[in-house]
Amino acid sequence: MKTLTLMLAALLAASPVLALDGKWTPAQVLEIDPGWLQDQGLELTPKQLWDAKRGTGLLTGAVKIGGCSGAFVSSAGLIVTNHHCLFPLIQEHSTPDRDLISDGFLARKRGEELAGSTLRVEIPRRFTDVSGEVLKTIPTGATPEQRMAAIEAQQKSLIQQCEQQPDTLCTVAVFDEGVSYTLIESMELRDVRLVYAPPRAIGEYGGEIDNWMWPRHTGDFAIARAYVGKDDKPADHGQDNKPYRPEFIFPISRDGVVAGDFVMLLGYPGVTYRSLLAEEMRERRERFFVRREELFGEWIEVLQQASEGDPAGVIAVAANVKSILNRHKNAQGQIAGLDRGNIVQKQLDADNAVAAWVRKHPQHTAALDARAGLRALLAEREQSWERDFLLNLIPMGVESVAGGIPPLPKTLYFGATLAHNAIEQTLDDAARAEGFSSSDQPKLRERLRREQQNYHAAADQQLLAALVRRALALPKEQRIASVDRHFGKLDQTAIEARIAELYGQTALLDAKVREQMLTENIDSLRARGDALLDFAIDWNQDLRALREREHQWASRSAIHRPIWRRAVRAQAGQPIAPDANGSLRISFAHIKGYVPRDGVRYTPFTTLSGALEKHTGIDPFDLPAAVRTASRTPGKRWLQADLNDLPINFLADGDTSGGNSGSPVVNAMGELVGINFDRVWENVAGDFGFNPALSRNISVDIRYLLWLLDRVEHADELLQELGVEREL
Amino acid sequence: MKTLTLMLAALLAASPVLALDGKWTPAQVLEIDPGWLQDQGLELTPKQLWDAKRGTGLLTGAVKIGGCSGAFVSSAGLIVTNHHCLFPLIQEHSTPDRDLISDGFLARKRGEELAGSTLRVEIPRRFTDVSGEVLKTIPTGATPEQRMAAIEAQQKSLIQQCEQQPDTLCTVAVFDEGVSYTLIESMELRDVRLVYAPPRAIGEYGGEIDNWMWPRHTGDFAIARAYVGKDDKPADHGQDNKPYRPEFIFPISRDGVVAGDFVMLLGYPGVTYRSLLAEEMRERRERFFVRREELFGEWIEVLQQASEGDPAGVIAVAANVKSILNRHKNAQGQIAGLDRGNIVQKQLDADNAVAAWVRKHPQHTAALDARAGLRALLAEREQSWERDFLLNLIPMGVESVAGGIPPLPKTLYFGATLAHNAIEQTLDDAARAEGFSSSDQPKLRERLRREQQNYHAAADQQLLAALVRRALALPKEQRIASVDRHFGKLDQTAIEARIAELYGQTALLDAKVREQMLTENIDSLRARGDALLDFAIDWNQDLRALREREHQWASRSAIHRPIWRRAVRAQAGQPIAPDANGSLRISFAHIKGYVPRDGVRYTPFTTLSGALEKHTGIDPFDLPAAVRTASRTPGKRWLQADLNDLPINFLADGDTSGGNSGSPVVNAMGELVGINFDRVWENVAGDFGFNPALSRNISVDIRYLLWLLDRVEHADELLQELGVEREL
Repeated sequence: MKTLTLMLAALLAASPVLALDGKWTPAQVLEIDPGWLQDQGLELTPKQLWDAKRGTGLLTGAVKIGGCSGAFVSSAGLIVTNHHCLFPLIQEHSTPDRDLISDGFLARKRGEELAGSTLRVEIPRRFTDVSGEVLKTIPTGATPEQRMAAIEAQQKSLIQQCEQQPDTLCTVAVFDEGVSYTLIESMELRDVRLVYAPPRAIGEYGGEIDNWMWPRHTGDFAIARAYVGKDDKPADHGQDNKPYRPEFIFPISRDGVVAGDFVMLLGYPGVTYRSLLAEEMRERRERFFVRREELFGEWIEVLQQASEGDPAGVIAVAANVKSILNRHKNAQGQIAGLDRGNIVQKQLDADNAVAAWVRKHPQHTAALDARAGLRALLAEREQSWERDFLLNLIPMGVESVAGGIPPLPKTLYFGATLAHNAIEQTLDDAARAEGFSSSDQPKLRERLRREQQNYHAAADQQLLAALVRRALALPKEQRIASVDRHFGKLDQTAIEARIAELYGQTALLDAKVREQMLTENIDSLRARGDALLDFAIDWNQDLRALREREHQWASRSAIHRPIWRRAVRAQAGQPIAPDANGSLRISFAHIKGYVPRDGVRYTPFTTLSGALEKHTGIDPFDLPAAVRTASRTPGKRWLQADLNDLPINFLADGDTSGGNSGSPVVNAMGELVGINFDRVWENVAGDFGFNPALSRNISVDIRYLLWLLDRVEHADELLQELGVEREL
Repeated sequence: MKTLTLMLAALLAASPVLALDGKWTPAQVLEIDPGWLQDQGLELTPKQLWDAKRGTGLLTGAVKIGGCSGAFVSSAGLIVTNHHCLFPLIQEHSTPDRDLISDGFLARKRGEELAGSTLRVEIPRRFTDVSGEVLKTIPTGATPEQRMAAIEAQQKSLIQQCEQQPDTLCTVAVFDEGVSYTLIESMELRDVRLVYAPPRAIGEYGGEIDNWMWPRHTGDFAIARAYVGKDDKPADHGQDNKPYRPEFIFPISRDGVVAGDFVMLLGYPGVTYRSLLAEEMRERRERFFVRREELFGEWIEVLQQASEGDPAGVIAVAANVKSILNRHKNAQGQIAGLDRGNIVQKQLDADNAVAAWVRKHPQHTAALDARAGLRALLAEREQSWERDFLLNLIPMGVESVAGGIPPLPKTLYFGATLAHNAIEQTLDDAARAEGFSSSDQPKLRERLRREQQNYHAAADQQLLAALVRRALALPKEQRIASVDRHFGKLDQTAIEARIAELYGQTALLDAKVREQMLTENIDSLRARGDALLDFAIDWNQDLRALREREHQWASRSAIHRPIWRRAVRAQAGQPIAPDANGSLRISFAHIKGYVPRDGVRYTPFTTLSGALEKHTGIDPFDLPAAVRTASRTPGKRWLQADLNDLPINFLADGDTSGGNSGSPVVNAMGELVGINFDRVWENVAGDFGFNPALSRNISVDIRYLLWLLDRVEHADELLQELGVEREL
């Protein structure tokens, strides 16, 4: 197939559509027509991007750090990433007396750098296609679940084998549910230290208000340094460690960028959903996001009304309201973006084109059955869709409902998690669900303790009442047994009173008792005679049954999807980037604005003047005095000539997703020009399909960082290490 | 001086700044360098714009209609203006059975046109400089007040004399407080009929939400026809009347406009304040708008909180809240615009430059004293500024606080107005204040009746309490005697109770008693022993004393201002447009977008697609089904090629103010391309100074009107009369 793809790629290389849409794997960089890349603006050879044999090139400069992406920028291990990616490290060293969060931090000497206790850096080393090895162990005649088990076992085994190499971290990345499997070898550095962080008022300028929005003026950058032992090998933090010497670094661009410039984004984008069938996307559009939008709207109202006029209550629910508002806005953005990009219909047209092509290419006939299989699976899932949606609202333990929705109502979360843990503890440690192993227990205990912080009695009861009402309104064939058992016989008007009674009697809200419960088995929990806990135990049983069905569905999907996607690739006749899965990717883009709505054009750069215009002195628009003072004589070195101003953030049509935070943005020569940190609201549906008109990522211009280091921090040595001369 | 101006204008004509900033009088059009106008894009000669001798030209096609501007567009008297300008006429003919407001209206034959009972059209005919005649009657040694009285008497006399010509309406326009006086002769047509009005959902699309905003998608247009008697002279409405044949009409442009095109706006802009000194502008910025912003914010909170949870109350205060919100937004816009344009500082620089020039030109020495006099006047006014601001919050009778703020609290408005009227009735009818003559009494009675509609007991009492508290907090030298007398001895905590008591006892809230009171003199009012009324009578005395001081201030200002402004003009050495005063003006502009804030550019056209994107089906975004249906096959005739869409609204840097609503926007050849209807929020401070970066007016594109008439209304005959062929 690869040969066919390459042939066709050469034939179709003239098509300007190719590759703009896509988060390309290192291997694919070498499959894309080099002429096309040159036309886009690339001045390096593909081999300079990625040399598979030597495991080197531009791509290896992009590292994983703190769940984000980052970039090596000096031969002594300096890494630039986002402020929000290093935030835990900044927090770790902040005290009331030395508030690094508010004040920012700059190590003027190496000795002043601040070591992190848990922060790690992963440097990519080798990518090997292990599809054959993964699939070869599947027993003939295996059921879908047996097949899945075999695949998972083989992945584990490959990882174990791989990690016998010294200082090597291995993972198997699954592409498009099994089209291919890649063994990824990395080196993990464990001594990572904070070098520079701006004050939060710069790093989070605009806060939640500007989140996902353009125009943006956020200095979302920070600098760390990776250390190794004296023997050049990964080591725990130690005085004798020395800076890591990366094989590849991104030189800092001296000229910056202007509108229209070609750029590349390198990093580790999280999960996307572009390989779904149109029908599956429609389920997201018509059901999932609609229901979330509606339900989160209800939650916000409940939380706000229950706490109104009660200052302590308002504080208690504030964090929850904030994160739910965020997801509410996201759901609306997904709906708007899917509609505006006409993404479901376009996917249907594409799917149908593939099906028509398959009918003429009998060797791919199985794809039609695969498509039918995926559709049947969806139809089956839709039978219990409303019920399963409700059950999945309550995460277990340290799980989170997608996007970090807080677990609500808390009592149900506490009780069901305790039940879940009790059951998992009866299994072998290795067989336990993620987050419930022996070593996970401290984390779990901490989480159960911490979640009480945002508890608000009236709101919690009302949220439970709302959930119960929704469950009781489900059609006959979708009943939730636990809810029926505990609330089914009540008169509609008696639900609130019963819940108040349950809350009055339960021990679930007593943190000490809860910690005790974490060590009890199901029988002990039942023996407590706590009616609210009993309901939660029963709820968890319903959820566990759902998890089993979900595992079956996933096993079947993993059979059909790869067959279908292989046909999609064959029909395309040119490289198609697989869905993002947290593995290293590159996106080719240009700096450009967009039209968010009729009569409005967002221009691709924001400036220091714009940041000052937003300044109100009130968080989140409270630029530090040092920045405002420096802005009066900003110098010339870092200004952009056509703006006659310091560039702060810029837009590009980079194809990004969550994990791309901190991704280096580099120019045609591979020089660092910015750091990606967000995408625009109009582009959240980009997870489902690329819309050239609206797909825009937001980067902080590297010149803003350099200007701060030069004109505000006067950080001569750091600038020198970055290979940048200060303004005279 | 004129000769000097002309000479210098010729010398300085190369300056591109000239004339972009300005609402030019007809006479000034002939003073501006024709070469400069040509460079701007004008393809007509200045004489085609205005022929002073013959009293004809493009400018005479622009008429006054319903407090707005309008344009003749057919030789049979069709006038295009804004929907909101003809709204009273539409309302007059609307009944529950025949709701023209909601449904719109189209007269398919002349006989179907709907006559208005009060709507008038004024057609300009002659402009004569009468400065010499006005000023010649001032007695030597007159005090400022005597001087003012002489000027006003002479104006009245000139008008009376002028109106002896048949069918002639005369006014004397005062420019910049007396730099010059122009006698304006117009013809007034009294038979004006509605021909076409779109449904309100088109004419007010976007409503209050989009008011002052871009992007905008409002079809704010309507068509009327003016009629004359059989003898071609103005006549009351009558069956035998015939359409008026205007001397000049604006042909409809066949090609429309594109970004960058030269356009002209003709019309009757209302009051502006650009001839103020910097210090006077600073008073507006630092005191007036700041205090309004703060006070209106308080009012909105009082009205909303007092009516919360009470549906009838919410309805009662809705109109008040809406108009106060509007003025609140305006005050914020004025502050933001004055700051962003740095208008006060620029004015100070300009003033200082004039002063420096004057020092070198002894013949203008008096200007320095004039400037000092205006500053002293301001300093004097500032002595009692806070007190006077409060007193002026309560308008008398049919007056309105600038911008149509409703009179609040109502009781104080009722009582003080009744007192004011009682006093005015003791004067000769001719000497009474505007709105209080014998012939005004029905209007006044109606107003006193109608104002009860929005009364909300709790809110009204709280607003009075807030006003009393503000008055009691005034410094010693600014006390309001009436407030001190009635509330000064009360304990702070007793104010609300006392007000509740007053409201419980007063007859002011009884509409019938109020109507009776309108015929009573002060003694009778006092004899009622109504304590709230007594307070209002005393308040009115304080206000009357203020009005007298204001009249003195105005008399003194009218001496100084013209002297200063003459120096300003002499120093400029090129034509300077006087402040707008409701007289006919022309503004030269180009179609262009603007940058409302960093990272955002507003593009100059909106489209039908954009209007459809805003459509939610809920007022004010509820496009009629007929428009939505027609939009599916919009045809090609009216689309703009570079947008491939129907243009709806466009931006230009026209220099406009309030009365410019309905102003024709014409291209370089004088062809109608749009109708002005608003300016952008960023430009409300344009009343104080022109900011080229932000001064933008909003027009509805004439192609939207034509498209509706063609594709939605199929109004063949009307289009034919407009000289436009329908799309085949």
